[in-house]
Amino acid sequence: MHCEVICIGTEILLGTTLNTNLSFIGLQLDDCGLSVACEVCIPDTVDDIGSALQTALNRSDLVITVGGLGPTVDDMTRETIAAILGMRLEYREDEAERIRRYFSERHVEMPESVLKQAYVPDGAEVIDNDYGTAPGLWCLSGNAVVVMLPGPPRELKPMLNNYVLPRICERFPPRVRRINIGISGIGESSIEDCVATVLPDFPDLEVAYCVRRDKVDVRLTAAIDRVDTLESAAVAVRGVLKEYLVDSEHGVVGSVCDEVRRRSWSLGTAESCTGGEIAKRITDLAGVSDIFKGALVTYANEAKSELLGVRPETLATHGSVSAETADEMAVGLVRRLQVDAGVAVTGIAGPDGGTPDKPVGLAFISTIVQGDVRTQRYVHPGDRRRMRDRTTLAALNQLLRHLRES
Amino acid sequence: MHCEVICIGTEILLGTTLNTNLSFIGLQLDDCGLSVACEVCIPDTVDDIGSALQTALNRSDLVITVGGLGPTVDDMTRETIAAILGMRLEYREDEAERIRRYFSERHVEMPESVLKQAYVPDGAEVIDNDYGTAPGLWCLSGNAVVVMLPGPPRELKPMLNNYVLPRICERFPPRVRRINIGISGIGESSIEDCVATVLPDFPDLEVAYCVRRDKVDVRLTAAIDRVDTLESAAVAVRGVLKEYLVDSEHGVVGSVCDEVRRRSWSLGTAESCTGGEIAKRITDLAGVSDIFKGALVTYANEAKSELLGVRPETLATHGSVSAETADEMAVGLVRRLQVDAGVAVTGIAGPDGGTPDKPVGLAFISTIVQGDVRTQRYVHPGDRRRMRDRTTLAALNQLLRHLRES
Repeated sequence: MHCEVICIGTEILLGTTLNTNLSFIGLQLDDCGLSVACEVCIPDTVDDIGSALQTALNRSDLVITVGGLGPTVDDMTRETIAAILGMRLEYREDEAERIRRYFSERHVEMPESVLKQAYVPDGAEVIDNDYGTAPGLWCLSGNAVVVMLPGPPRELKPMLNNYVLPRICERFPPRVRRINIGISGIGESSIEDCVATVLPDFPDLEVAYCVRRDKVDVRLTAAIDRVDTLESAAVAVRGVLKEYLVDSEHGVVGSVCDEVRRRSWSLGTAESCTGGEIAKRITDLAGVSDIFKGALVTYANEAKSELLGVRPETLATHGSVSAETADEMAVGLVRRLQVDAGVAVTGIAGPDGGTPDKPVGLAFISTIVQGDVRTQRYVHPGDRRRMRDRTTLAALNQLLRHLRES
Repeated sequence: MHCEVICIGTEILLGTTLNTNLSFIGLQLDDCGLSVACEVCIPDTVDDIGSALQTALNRSDLVITVGGLGPTVDDMTRETIAAILGMRLEYREDEAERIRRYFSERHVEMPESVLKQAYVPDGAEVIDNDYGTAPGLWCLSGNAVVVMLPGPPRELKPMLNNYVLPRICERFPPRVRRINIGISGIGESSIEDCVATVLPDFPDLEVAYCVRRDKVDVRLTAAIDRVDTLESAAVAVRGVLKEYLVDSEHGVVGSVCDEVRRRSWSLGTAESCTGGEIAKRITDLAGVSDIFKGALVTYANEAKSELLGVRPETLATHGSVSAETADEMAVGLVRRLQVDAGVAVTGIAGPDGGTPDKPVGLAFISTIVQGDVRTQRYVHPGDRRRMRDRTTLAALNQLLRHLRES
């Protein structure tokens, strides 16, 4: 099955909009055992849309277009594609009604121009949009399917997951089944070594390693008639990597919160070089108010002393970036916030501030679980953003390990 | 000038890697008055690379390829493109030496396979890579230019800015010049109204409004022989939007830090629903340790009382999401951290926790500057991520306004 994605939007080529939709579509199709063979991004013009669709139809079974379904003059996907597929646009009163209701429910006046979105190519199926006014469209062209989706991610995502993917899997039954197993806190080659110890038991299985932002997914793939093998292999891989398994949706931060919640404990952070990033990642998750009490971001040395009780002698003797300071930050965090578990981080994010002894990228991380403190030294070179990102991940991983061993 | 970008990498189509390079290239070219006409993303196969390049060469003056220049077996951009352009690969001892030096300077053992990157198509110019081992390549094919760049953003970005863009502008002199003026804290249509009052003085000027994550760029474009007009227009637009101007590189957070720094003041935050995101944004900027003392992330009510001194009566009477609580958080922040300026935020990020009186999206923001407190109410509907993002931006904007009026 050859699937092509056409992203329509001058703003993506201008660079003002990051194309997150392609990544989302790729991941969702991959989970179903399907894949995107090619993507094209073009401006919102009739000529560009027309020629990209013609090219795609010549080689694809499935074409997904993204964007250009809105009400403004530069939205011309619907009209252009209908013309190419030889479909007439019909004004659909039920769609117009849905759009009117969308505005009245939000007590917002409806500009007449949005009713342009009530025109539907004859023969097309409408894909409901619960988060916006532009409906998606499912059209047939010979043996190929053309699916048109709106560009805003919060509209596209539920439409793809709830409506489009099930339809795609029905029409193009995947020949393989996949299971992704999220792993964090261990290097890619060590993961490979662990997996290699169990793999010989499962021939006909394909294994891949996908490095994501905060985990590595071990991706197991088997033919659709070998689902039993696939599931047994997943059990074996999970067993051999037990201590490094993380939440498949929320990664290591999700697993940390699970461990804390399952013990009815509370959680806090004390951060210097990460500047609040660990707390931000934790509170990215909805519903953490039952376990997360708060964070003390002590960027200045005086804040480390005043808020966390780090002793001025410790700062003077060992420096603010030291195992001793990280230790005292962790102890102070627990005393101050009265939490059962926490993590304290101090480091040099750069680009300035490094010395031969304490280079940019150096960090000390102390985790504390029910009074037990563990401190580790890390060096994460690279630019400031990368250092902070990797230090945040290291802090969450060290805390997860500590929680699991407590 | 027709420019096409070819992104080579199965990981982008799989969705595990977000294509940030396209956005970066688009923004940089746009600043020079050039634009990307089309982008194609393909897997790392000889056939896909070959056919994408052939198609691009038939219609483009400039083709930029991204990715596939590394040392592994699935990196085949260099070999494939050299074959299509009829160029022989030559082993370059100077390049091999550079690669060896790269490893020895980092005290890392060099795998022999990386020397594959020392092969250069004859006639191609090498583009130095200061952050990795794969050199970029600049090749001619008839009148067209083909530029090959490595995929990792920290390698691509400096190569594009320092070497490729100047060469592109020399070969394809832009016919227009652009100035972007960053504006925040005022709606797009109000910006348009303000700009409209000065525009009649500057005919032959093109104006566009680009909505970015934390600002709107007013983009002024003029023919290359009208640079004087362009600069006068920029002065006029800056004048009429003076109070909403923000740092062109770092947006509103950069301007907040500038205002604090220029008075030799100090800064802190007190955050509930934003969970540390404001502090994270501030510390994303390098060199803020001279002004930023820290943050108190008080997610739980008890933390608001214990750390910030919010009175239990205030929480009981008005609730944790109220103007009164935001006020007391701001006052407590200054008392605790001894800062000259700060911002306190409390709100309901959702998806749960809303009531008819206090819906999801509601936030109260108090800014405090030298003891003067100002509090405003906001409602930012949408999902949790969007609410937190927009509340963070509102907090920074309110603080910037308050600082500028102090």
